[in-house]
Amino acid sequence: MPLPELKQSKERRQHLLRSSLQLFIAKGYFNTAIRDIITVSGVGTGTFYNYFVDKEDVLKALLEEFAEQIITSISQYYQVEEDIYERFVETKRITMQVFAANQDLSELYSRVAGASEPIDRCLKDFEDKLISFYSRNIEYGIKKGRFRKVPVAPVAHSILATEKFLLYKWVVLKDISQAEMIEMVVSFHETLAQGLLAD
Amino acid sequence: MPLPELKQSKERRQHLLRSSLQLFIAKGYFNTAIRDIITVSGVGTGTFYNYFVDKEDVLKALLEEFAEQIITSISQYYQVEEDIYERFVETKRITMQVFAANQDLSELYSRVAGASEPIDRCLKDFEDKLISFYSRNIEYGIKKGRFRKVPVAPVAHSILATEKFLLYKWVVLKDISQAEMIEMVVSFHETLAQGLLAD
Repeated sequence: MPLPELKQSKERRQHLLRSSLQLFIAKGYFNTAIRDIITVSGVGTGTFYNYFVDKEDVLKALLEEFAEQIITSISQYYQVEEDIYERFVETKRITMQVFAANQDLSELYSRVAGASEPIDRCLKDFEDKLISFYSRNIEYGIKKGRFRKVPVAPVAHSILATEKFLLYKWVVLKDISQAEMIEMVVSFHETLAQGLLAD
Repeated sequence: MPLPELKQSKERRQHLLRSSLQLFIAKGYFNTAIRDIITVSGVGTGTFYNYFVDKEDVLKALLEEFAEQIITSISQYYQVEEDIYERFVETKRITMQVFAANQDLSELYSRVAGASEPIDRCLKDFEDKLISFYSRNIEYGIKKGRFRKVPVAPVAHSILATEKFLLYKWVVLKDISQAEMIEMVVSFHETLAQGLLAD
């Protein structure tokens, strides 16, 4: 029995995304051509273009799903933890665990920055989504009176910046272990949280 | 009257560094060949290799001088400001002003990460130098009893990470102005300092 059309279409898109990610890691993003993706995934040329406009569009889709995965993991944790301090610190552990569990995507994210304008736009969408989410969570803590009234945007940026930098030290430089990466991110947020907590 | 030999040698090296930086910005680091540097700077091929082993060696020298410039600017400020809180926050303004005053070097630093192992090693030297310097300053605050006894390395990494990320938003993405970049970095450190200050 054939799959319903929508399900088939979603699976084909996922298959193209997975094949692309494998190629981006094996050959490097810049050395991967769309014809490589088509060959490896075994679809027709027309099929690729039914789903994606170009290679940047594939990168964008990969990062969009990645951001959703991080946000979903944090949102699920919020359902079991109500304390705002615990949330602030422990969600960083969860975020880094999602990065660690997706080493290929993490490496892609860490390596492609600054290379071209279309790529920077993809990264910016990914990062803006996370920064907005982090900002809303800090604003919630301020609204509840648990955090001081500090300018939120700089703090939200520093959270992503720290996660990104320690991710890069782990996945690109291999200068720290996965466990060290997670512990350093959590430790920093324990210190930062003391600066946020209302008296 | 000819320049003394040492001075002449230093000036030639500086001239090669300046020519290289111009080319890295105009053509991109990856599209610049050593023969371009030799042509633009007007020196003989042998002369280039008297000073540098390869292109990464030029990048390394540029970043080393840049790190020295940042550290010197902060050290000079330390001679006029003794208060540890003021130092912690205001040195970030000084750092970002040095980045802003060296837009070409800032752009080079923001664009080349993750591209290859030799480049990553150059960046790591630059970043490790700054992280060590930041760590020593936080340790000094702890020793003086002004800061709480927090794990220092994660905080030092978050400082550089935040500076680097907001630098990238200014110089690559052009998403924030130079003034916004500086204010966001300073604002974040005001919040973070509250987490560091001893009761």
